[in-house]
Amino acid sequence: MEATDLSRIGLAGLAVMGQNLALNIAEKGFPISVYNRSANKVDDTVERAKEEGNLPLRGYHDPKDFVLSIQKPRAVILLVKAGTPVDQTIATLSNFMEPGDCIVDGGNEWYENTERRAKQVVEKGLLYLGMGVSGGEEGARYGPSLMPGGTREAYKYIEDVVTKVAAQVDDGPCVTYVGDGGAGNFVKMVHNGIEYGDMQLISEAYDVLKSVGGLSNEEIANTFAEWNKGELESFLVEITADIFAVKDELAEGELVDKILDKTGMKGTGKWTVQQAAELSIAAPTIAASLDSRFLSGLKEEREMTAKIFKEHGLADVLGSKTVDKKQLVDDVRKALYASKICSYAQGMNLLRAKSTEKSWDLKLGELARIWKGGCIIRAVFLDRIKKAYDRNPKLASLLVDPDFAKEMVERQAAWRRVVGFAISIGISTPGMSASLAYFDTYRRARLPANLVQAQRDYFGAHTYERIDQPGAYHTEWAKLARKLKAV
Amino acid sequence: MEATDLSRIGLAGLAVMGQNLALNIAEKGFPISVYNRSANKVDDTVERAKEEGNLPLRGYHDPKDFVLSIQKPRAVILLVKAGTPVDQTIATLSNFMEPGDCIVDGGNEWYENTERRAKQVVEKGLLYLGMGVSGGEEGARYGPSLMPGGTREAYKYIEDVVTKVAAQVDDGPCVTYVGDGGAGNFVKMVHNGIEYGDMQLISEAYDVLKSVGGLSNEEIANTFAEWNKGELESFLVEITADIFAVKDELAEGELVDKILDKTGMKGTGKWTVQQAAELSIAAPTIAASLDSRFLSGLKEEREMTAKIFKEHGLADVLGSKTVDKKQLVDDVRKALYASKICSYAQGMNLLRAKSTEKSWDLKLGELARIWKGGCIIRAVFLDRIKKAYDRNPKLASLLVDPDFAKEMVERQAAWRRVVGFAISIGISTPGMSASLAYFDTYRRARLPANLVQAQRDYFGAHTYERIDQPGAYHTEWAKLARKLKAV
Repeated sequence: MEATDLSRIGLAGLAVMGQNLALNIAEKGFPISVYNRSANKVDDTVERAKEEGNLPLRGYHDPKDFVLSIQKPRAVILLVKAGTPVDQTIATLSNFMEPGDCIVDGGNEWYENTERRAKQVVEKGLLYLGMGVSGGEEGARYGPSLMPGGTREAYKYIEDVVTKVAAQVDDGPCVTYVGDGGAGNFVKMVHNGIEYGDMQLISEAYDVLKSVGGLSNEEIANTFAEWNKGELESFLVEITADIFAVKDELAEGELVDKILDKTGMKGTGKWTVQQAAELSIAAPTIAASLDSRFLSGLKEEREMTAKIFKEHGLADVLGSKTVDKKQLVDDVRKALYASKICSYAQGMNLLRAKSTEKSWDLKLGELARIWKGGCIIRAVFLDRIKKAYDRNPKLASLLVDPDFAKEMVERQAAWRRVVGFAISIGISTPGMSASLAYFDTYRRARLPANLVQAQRDYFGAHTYERIDQPGAYHTEWAKLARKLKAV
Repeated sequence: MEATDLSRIGLAGLAVMGQNLALNIAEKGFPISVYNRSANKVDDTVERAKEEGNLPLRGYHDPKDFVLSIQKPRAVILLVKAGTPVDQTIATLSNFMEPGDCIVDGGNEWYENTERRAKQVVEKGLLYLGMGVSGGEEGARYGPSLMPGGTREAYKYIEDVVTKVAAQVDDGPCVTYVGDGGAGNFVKMVHNGIEYGDMQLISEAYDVLKSVGGLSNEEIANTFAEWNKGELESFLVEITADIFAVKDELAEGELVDKILDKTGMKGTGKWTVQQAAELSIAAPTIAASLDSRFLSGLKEEREMTAKIFKEHGLADVLGSKTVDKKQLVDDVRKALYASKICSYAQGMNLLRAKSTEKSWDLKLGELARIWKGGCIIRAVFLDRIKKAYDRNPKLASLLVDPDFAKEMVERQAAWRRVVGFAISIGISTPGMSASLAYFDTYRRARLPANLVQAQRDYFGAHTYERIDQPGAYHTEWAKLARKLKAV
């Protein structure tokens, strides 16, 4: 094969995401080689490349041929299932790769696995990147948000490609070199945690509109479509409007009403919650969205529980509220927006805490920027987050950015009404409630934590500090209390 | 040394907990040898044993002499800091131990460390137990709750001792063989997670009584003392009453008001939350208590945030409510009780999930029983939990036990009022809110999770199930929505 005949880049792993990303790369004018363990997926991809305009894509059934068809220094993107399959694919391909070549894992991988693999392949002289890819199938094909992390030198190999392939927004392509080691995977993980939060908050908004306001699916579709023209403009709000409009093809009414209320998940939300706990970062909105998925999974148990409580006289929904629909819709919009800010504040603070721990030097504003397009959480709103960090890169929390603080204050009364309504009629808004509790805790100079610390000192001699003088104190509480009782 | 001269048992690690447990064992008539790396603690303990009634306790400065002073098969309890110090102590002592001897780690250890060590020492023929010890300093001295797990055979070595040493309640000593491997540590970890929840909920009750009801410290002390005579009777409620009565010795008023609202923590709460996520168990109340500790730690940041929001016109506490104090106290009591049930339901379900994963065969009712005395969460209430599991060991959740279900229904209106009050005046009740959202989610047959699943299918082709027929479905949402818009 002549040098001019070589592909610019390679991609291994041809499930839908891999196929689509490969076609996207080819379409941007970068000749690409593709490989998959099962040959039929290779052939499918080659076929699609032809159909979609004779794109410069070549398929290989043999891993050696695949690797050797790529120009040096080679860059090979992997889009295989996170975990063992990545290790297997690396084992297969690295046999034929040469010092200076680079592996780019585009899966939703646990960041420590990336760091482990980067260390392993460096022994063979290979470079390694872990690159978060968001945007689902559509994004992969037409422009995802890309979060590559690892050796900065390796990023140079793929910079021209990913810059073209990523979604393009007003201020550039939705990709940046994120940071060292597993930073790219970690950022993608938190992105997904935030995505969990957004989806949960939207589903709570739907629930309140329906259960409190009695809105029909059509009204809900129109509400979300309307919301998508304002501060809430985002991919998830847009598709929610679509979803409520789609009719069921098998029965009367809209399809959404026929979908089982049982939510799947893949692990990144769980990791986000575990990492937040590890790093002492409160992330209650994201945690509430994960818990809601867990509880949604207990469908049969919930049906049984509902029955038991009905027998005790407690209905699923406790009566109804007489509400002004227009006012409610407006309140719910504000509640959703305010809750979202809290959720993003949690995610961003988690990223910063990890960045400090790992010395990744993550640029939070830049991360908000690359999420503006391509990815599932893309939203107009992210530009405001970017600007908040541009104004002050050391911002303690999004909530104290002057613009966001003002917005929170303007929305808080409506937010309290919405959560109050939900509580009074017995429908849960775990995400909105958690966000509100987070807000009211974070903005409170004096919390009742003095009592907790007193209790800890009482039974465990853990000591406490005072508000009026320095030092650590211990009190013999039980003794003093006994004395008082004896008086 | 003659055989008759040998100690029944040994204990290494003589910080306060270790000293107290050693004295407790000696006082129950079991001659004990004690050892510590720093000699002065050994001497202190020996001194205390003399002072507290010439208790049969001997101190050793040399690890070999210590081990050889114990009758065979030897049982040595460790009460050193979890982590590396445990490994170091095992390394030191196991040199002199013989096949058939047993090590009992009484620290708050991560259960996997116990399982790793059990495997290591088995190579030397040693047996291993990980034993949760709860009750703080007082408990260790006068009767803790003990949660030993590991080789059942090893438990036989210490059964007579721990049965005497543990707290004694109406239906026996607060100790039982918990289960295999690291089961004892895991159960203690969840106990601590529940303890976090209890403390947080009590501090929220205090906050509502003070901020909504305007109760004085004296009134709060009396309220908790009163509550301690009823359904809330428990160690933590009792000490809370004590705490509010204690005067400050350095200034005017009660000490509790001078304590900095910044809460420390040691890791078991964090582990509980991480394990809940790992096992797909919703534990939002416990998570809220952990998050509250995190946020309490940001004291300076909170003061700054409060200032910023005040400048935007939002006070810490938003006005006041005109409430009937007596009614409020009654409502808060009910809210606290109902929230507690939810928190315990979460903890128990976490234990069951882990038990299933690890085949530990944990007896939830028996665990509730050994928590009835000695430990920090000891409460009258635990007898009711024990009885619920006696009635139905396969109970899906405490919430659906007929007695608890009835109590929840009786208290839910008051609970909603309390959380509603808190939300409306802007003080956070993260634990009570999380419990309420948990309750309202778990008892709901139909959740808005159908929308989340529709979204996942929309952008990720994750498929969904239907409520009216079996199978997995995928819909081309975007295409159908586009068609509708085109009409």
